[in-house]
Amino acid sequence: MSNQPTAHLAAIGTALPGDPVDNAQLAKVLGVNEEWIEVFIGTKTRHFARDLATGEVRWSLADLCASAARKALDAGAVDAADIDFIVLGTATPDTLMPATVNNVADQLGLDQVPTFQLQSGCAGAVQALSVAQTMIASGQYRNGLVIGGDVCSKHLDVQRDLSGAAPSDLVNFVLFGDGAGAAVLSADPVGERVAVRHVLNRFTGLGRKPGQVIEWFGLADRHDDRQALTEDYKAIEEGVPVMAVEILWELLGELDWDAEDLDYLLPPQLSGRMTKKIAEELGVPTAREISCVAETGNNGNALPFLQIAGLLTEMKAGEKALAVAVESSKWIKAGFALEKI
Amino acid sequence: MSNQPTAHLAAIGTALPGDPVDNAQLAKVLGVNEEWIEVFIGTKTRHFARDLATGEVRWSLADLCASAARKALDAGAVDAADIDFIVLGTATPDTLMPATVNNVADQLGLDQVPTFQLQSGCAGAVQALSVAQTMIASGQYRNGLVIGGDVCSKHLDVQRDLSGAAPSDLVNFVLFGDGAGAAVLSADPVGERVAVRHVLNRFTGLGRKPGQVIEWFGLADRHDDRQALTEDYKAIEEGVPVMAVEILWELLGELDWDAEDLDYLLPPQLSGRMTKKIAEELGVPTAREISCVAETGNNGNALPFLQIAGLLTEMKAGEKALAVAVESSKWIKAGFALEKI
Repeated sequence: MSNQPTAHLAAIGTALPGDPVDNAQLAKVLGVNEEWIEVFIGTKTRHFARDLATGEVRWSLADLCASAARKALDAGAVDAADIDFIVLGTATPDTLMPATVNNVADQLGLDQVPTFQLQSGCAGAVQALSVAQTMIASGQYRNGLVIGGDVCSKHLDVQRDLSGAAPSDLVNFVLFGDGAGAAVLSADPVGERVAVRHVLNRFTGLGRKPGQVIEWFGLADRHDDRQALTEDYKAIEEGVPVMAVEILWELLGELDWDAEDLDYLLPPQLSGRMTKKIAEELGVPTAREISCVAETGNNGNALPFLQIAGLLTEMKAGEKALAVAVESSKWIKAGFALEKI
Repeated sequence: MSNQPTAHLAAIGTALPGDPVDNAQLAKVLGVNEEWIEVFIGTKTRHFARDLATGEVRWSLADLCASAARKALDAGAVDAADIDFIVLGTATPDTLMPATVNNVADQLGLDQVPTFQLQSGCAGAVQALSVAQTMIASGQYRNGLVIGGDVCSKHLDVQRDLSGAAPSDLVNFVLFGDGAGAAVLSADPVGERVAVRHVLNRFTGLGRKPGQVIEWFGLADRHDDRQALTEDYKAIEEGVPVMAVEILWELLGELDWDAEDLDYLLPPQLSGRMTKKIAEELGVPTAREISCVAETGNNGNALPFLQIAGLLTEMKAGEKALAVAVESSKWIKAGFALEKI
């Protein structure tokens, strides 16, 4: 409906825990080959919320999300008192209850607002953006905080010796990082003045085996010797580039934009190597690629915000950007389109 | 805005795993006193997805949610092919990734739809309803599936002997049950023709200690000897009845309804005993109480759907119902208002 309010990105903030951890450090702790990480993953650094030497938890997901959100609010485009709702996307909540978003609200000093937390992997940030966009489009809310973040450190067992592990198992320990990002969204064209033109979020996994599973353990099953992270890396390598191209063209079709209209392209951030490959296959040489995974590691729901933060340092009025995200867990197509006004 | 489409409850479905487990059976397995459960919890039966004798998992959360959703779809008010989105509220997903909602979509044979999964405790079903209501109000979607469910069995360690445990610890093992419920929502007044007049969902926990914490364990911390469930039962006993009354009057105020206008009241479902107490304090004797927790146990996000299922067997055109829910984890006020047209 043409009379729906448009959601605008007013401000952005990001938070990465501690110093970057390079491949030499990671290889040493996990007992794996540094060169293997360089060549097969292509990620150079990542950040961890847990101390790599001692395993001590230094930041919770709530800490990182609140830090990112505070930076977005400090930009001053929207007053904290005018925030009407908070939506957080994450795969790795601090606890099952309370939902982490409520501890974030607490840290930010926000009260009496609706809070939502979406359980999702790589598509979670886009889903959070989708819910926020719909809330603003409904006319019931004017300003909101959209947050994405992940702390994978509960699955980062620094005591474990991986020197004998298979590559398919190793991948899960060298791919990931921790971090968070946040955006202030507004029905008004304030701050960064970037209009959210479209959000895509669609389950496409009917009858299809999950490409990635991440378990949690409860009291009753926590001493089982099960693996917590399993990946069908071959299915991901084959499936994600194809889906990324489909998402790109579907978004362009929905928007009635040509590929040549794109000034920036935000491709899926799986690993340095995979993202490079996907960006090439997307085949939009006229658009500038905005990627971060080689420096941040795959920190899940933080990634789109880290990319947007990079985008906003360059984007000029009238320019268009398109983001593509694929969740391989049960195959979700996701993406969004931005235009600076 | 008055020109927003109204969301209508078109159909409902519920699923409870296996046979009801009575207090004698539960007392025996956990090594606790049967009479203590009767008197202090006041819940008579509950259902478990895990076999109480062997610990074997018999139903996943996805199984229960899909079963409930299938019943709601089978009512025929809305064709499965016309479902535009799925929203699931749960505190206890089967895995962290994929989100359980996607396995539910898979079981239902639904593809190419947006799926959302909200991480939340007692307020999750209301939050799912809120997101769905907003999606329909935005005019971007016409029909959706709203699902709520919880399987607490990952924390139901049947090997554990609780005979020496403190009551504050015991509570966590005798309060809960498993189950799921689902509703078909539509912008059209079809099927049950129950209009969703208002949804309340508001974080009110600023600076307030969580009343309930449920942990999950990862690879790195799963052998810690931490407790998975902790409750500040005193804070819950004191806080929830007060908040319930506040929610009732806030909802009535928003709707411009009088307490005497209410034909049905769906009070918070904590335990048989607590719900009885809260219903009395709500003080709306002219409204018929619809409760289920004494028979189903506290199965979290399933509860509001179980209550609605009970409501719909009685509700006549022109009648009004109001539901009150409190999430004590980090103190969320929730509720909704229904009117059969």
